[in-house]
Amino acid sequence: MVGPFGGTTAAQMLAAVLQHPHRIGDPVSLTVNFAAAVDAVPFRILADPVRTNRSTQHWMLRMLQTNSDGEEAVVTTATAITAKRRDTWQGDELPMPEVPPAADLTRDSLEGRPTWFGRYDVRYASGHLTLGTEPQPSSMTQVWVRDEPRRPLDHCGLAARCDVFFPRVWLRAGLMPAGTVSITTYFHVDQAGLDAVGHGFVLGQARGQRFFNQYFDQSVALWSEAGTVLATSHQVVYFKG
Amino acid sequence: MVGPFGGTTAAQMLAAVLQHPHRIGDPVSLTVNFAAAVDAVPFRILADPVRTNRSTQHWMLRMLQTNSDGEEAVVTTATAITAKRRDTWQGDELPMPEVPPAADLTRDSLEGRPTWFGRYDVRYASGHLTLGTEPQPSSMTQVWVRDEPRRPLDHCGLAARCDVFFPRVWLRAGLMPAGTVSITTYFHVDQAGLDAVGHGFVLGQARGQRFFNQYFDQSVALWSEAGTVLATSHQVVYFKG
Repeated sequence: MVGPFGGTTAAQMLAAVLQHPHRIGDPVSLTVNFAAAVDAVPFRILADPVRTNRSTQHWMLRMLQTNSDGEEAVVTTATAITAKRRDTWQGDELPMPEVPPAADLTRDSLEGRPTWFGRYDVRYASGHLTLGTEPQPSSMTQVWVRDEPRRPLDHCGLAARCDVFFPRVWLRAGLMPAGTVSITTYFHVDQAGLDAVGHGFVLGQARGQRFFNQYFDQSVALWSEAGTVLATSHQVVYFKG
Repeated sequence: MVGPFGGTTAAQMLAAVLQHPHRIGDPVSLTVNFAAAVDAVPFRILADPVRTNRSTQHWMLRMLQTNSDGEEAVVTTATAITAKRRDTWQGDELPMPEVPPAADLTRDSLEGRPTWFGRYDVRYASGHLTLGTEPQPSSMTQVWVRDEPRRPLDHCGLAARCDVFFPRVWLRAGLMPAGTVSITTYFHVDQAGLDAVGHGFVLGQARGQRFFNQYFDQSVALWSEAGTVLATSHQVVYFKG
């Protein structure tokens, strides 16, 4: 992958919004653009609440790092929307897929995996990629995921979990350099819903839609064990092809 | 709807990128956030190429309008990614739905529709909303769309066509105030693909995924008449509910 910090960076950008003293409301949407590989060096995030309405707030963010020439440069950009949300009619059109419960599956091996992968307990229900996997007609993967060490789910953790999937192109066309360039996540859960998940697993499903000239898009949904949609997320991913 | 200019505004933001003298490459992704209703008054767009790599470029944009107090304020924000794209392996997992051809359908009436709707020839294949429509179990709509007056398709026109759908919540729970707050579009077509569409119809499909506490997300795909995926797009929509 181009950089190993995609999910963590998305979470950091959202945290910069949520920790801001002028923030109102809870996350509705978050778009994070990976402008350059984030290095394992200090960073600054500038979070600008560019428009605050009565119940919604619009944010623009930049993550900056100092490069080897001593110049501070933009490595990540983001926009986010927070809002005070009222209880309304609810509905969904994403029934939770029928998969074996997490307890019946084993944690995926960390061997040969990047360090961040060890921060999750990932249990594949379908669409695993193993050595010798032949190109598949479908790029769908379904996994149970929880944090390791375990911690209660929050919106930042949800933003990170939306990016736990390996690049879909690997299932379709084999291993090749690939990395997310932009990820957008929509949040469908309030604090009570997060509390209901707590330290538990969420089920994630990812599927590629269109692979064209070095980029493909991937659609993700995350459900609680009780079957509630917590977040939907979409990303566009570079592949060397 | 909260404002009538969603699709046009998305197209304007993308046009500001494409007309910028420092731009490299073609559109890969575009996220537009509607921070306030765009009024029918002059606007300025500030387009900032915050990071230019060898083959990719990251953009941050703001649309400004002067409000009734004489102050210039942000009404729209956006991020975009452009890239020089090479031919690669292609694939897709979004087969075009089987619907009647556009020629077998009639143009939707403009009666009671907003002015912008008259700029399109829209032909419903499924999921039409008419007076007296009862709440439906599915929010899916499939429509053929071309510009009126007819003009060749370009990336800006594609960005606009991703936002031609009425709010999905109307099919599920009845008419109520609703409006897009953020839309993200991924572009899967180059100039040759656009030229192949030309003045023709594209098929659009939209479906809501999760409706929760005043916001729902909607997923869209657009195909050429030949069955090629041109763009996928996602938005989160406010509803009063």
